[in-house]
Amino acid sequence: MRVVVPFGVQSPKTRLAPLLVDDERRDFAVAMLRDVLDAVRDAGGTPLVLADAPLGEPIDAPVAVDDRPLTDAVNNQLAAGTPVTVVMADLALATPEALSRLFETAGDVVAAPGLGGGTNALVVRHPDFSVDYHGASIADHRRLADEVGATFVEVDSLRLAVDVDEPADFVDVLLHGAGRAREWVVDAGIHLQRGDGRVGVGRARR
Amino acid sequence: MRVVVPFGVQSPKTRLAPLLVDDERRDFAVAMLRDVLDAVRDAGGTPLVLADAPLGEPIDAPVAVDDRPLTDAVNNQLAAGTPVTVVMADLALATPEALSRLFETAGDVVAAPGLGGGTNALVVRHPDFSVDYHGASIADHRRLADEVGATFVEVDSLRLAVDVDEPADFVDVLLHGAGRAREWVVDAGIHLQRGDGRVGVGRARR
Repeated sequence: MRVVVPFGVQSPKTRLAPLLVDDERRDFAVAMLRDVLDAVRDAGGTPLVLADAPLGEPIDAPVAVDDRPLTDAVNNQLAAGTPVTVVMADLALATPEALSRLFETAGDVVAAPGLGGGTNALVVRHPDFSVDYHGASIADHRRLADEVGATFVEVDSLRLAVDVDEPADFVDVLLHGAGRAREWVVDAGIHLQRGDGRVGVGRARR
Repeated sequence: MRVVVPFGVQSPKTRLAPLLVDDERRDFAVAMLRDVLDAVRDAGGTPLVLADAPLGEPIDAPVAVDDRPLTDAVNNQLAAGTPVTVVMADLALATPEALSRLFETAGDVVAAPGLGGGTNALVVRHPDFSVDYHGASIADHRRLADEVGATFVEVDSLRLAVDVDEPADFVDVLLHGAGRAREWVVDAGIHLQRGDGRVGVGRARR
């Protein structure tokens, strides 16, 4: 399976600014990307990084640079032929098992919803389907599949639903992550804090 | 499968106070409970509501009242014999398919993690296992299983990972829910709001 992994070099993970400075956000984003590439390969996929600018450091996969908005850049990849899978680079909990389940699910379009309305992974087997990543994209993708007569199937996976955007997401990385991303978070001094409501995170500055 | 569904009558869903007043939180919690009971039955389970006080309204399942803390009340149910499953009452996205996958997963203890560290559903097949719902309970349950020599297996499900605690969780109810809970949210005038970051919700007061 050809697997496109979009990666934003230009403004990585701005909503993590409360806990991480610029260079850290960049480092952490690359750690997640490397984990995702490993998981894709372990699930039998062949990854291509789709970056909005040159990465500036070596990465163990081919990189295509396309500085257009995410939706246009991904649609250009879909135009190169199906089947193709799109997997976001910030799925720090993704495992080969979860991705294999995605790849093996039958359907013209198979989606793994993200929390809060996103589409974190998408297998496209229908030549007329195109993506639109603005807003609540999972609802848009359902509609877009319907418009071209493509079946739309969702994969029920927590590991593909968590994209790391906000400090609260570090809780799930610490509790369920395994790879470089979790190690990065631990090394940064970010740790669980247990209060009255949901568990949160704090950071010990070193 | 015997399925215990704990339900807090006394202080339902206090973190939804920014959007819902007291009676509404109670109504919404009952709508979610009814959806969960339906999903449990459709998955072949036999539900028992474990409430901390009398419900004050009819519900289509037997109700056991136990006003001890959640951990003690659930451990008392486990002591009545295994196998038994514990499913939280606020899993507004739970489907029969997701619960069937939980019931059918082999393991002495099978857990569906909640976002942010919780344990949203738990199949217990080992007589010496006990629960502890304080803090990041999924980590505690892993440890507690290990301590009694029970295998611990996690089920990877978004539909079992989302418990509705905070206004942001309504986004997922609106996008992925199907039953009474979603209908309740729509009828309350709660709707998606699309901003720059994750999609949020607003409420039109009537």
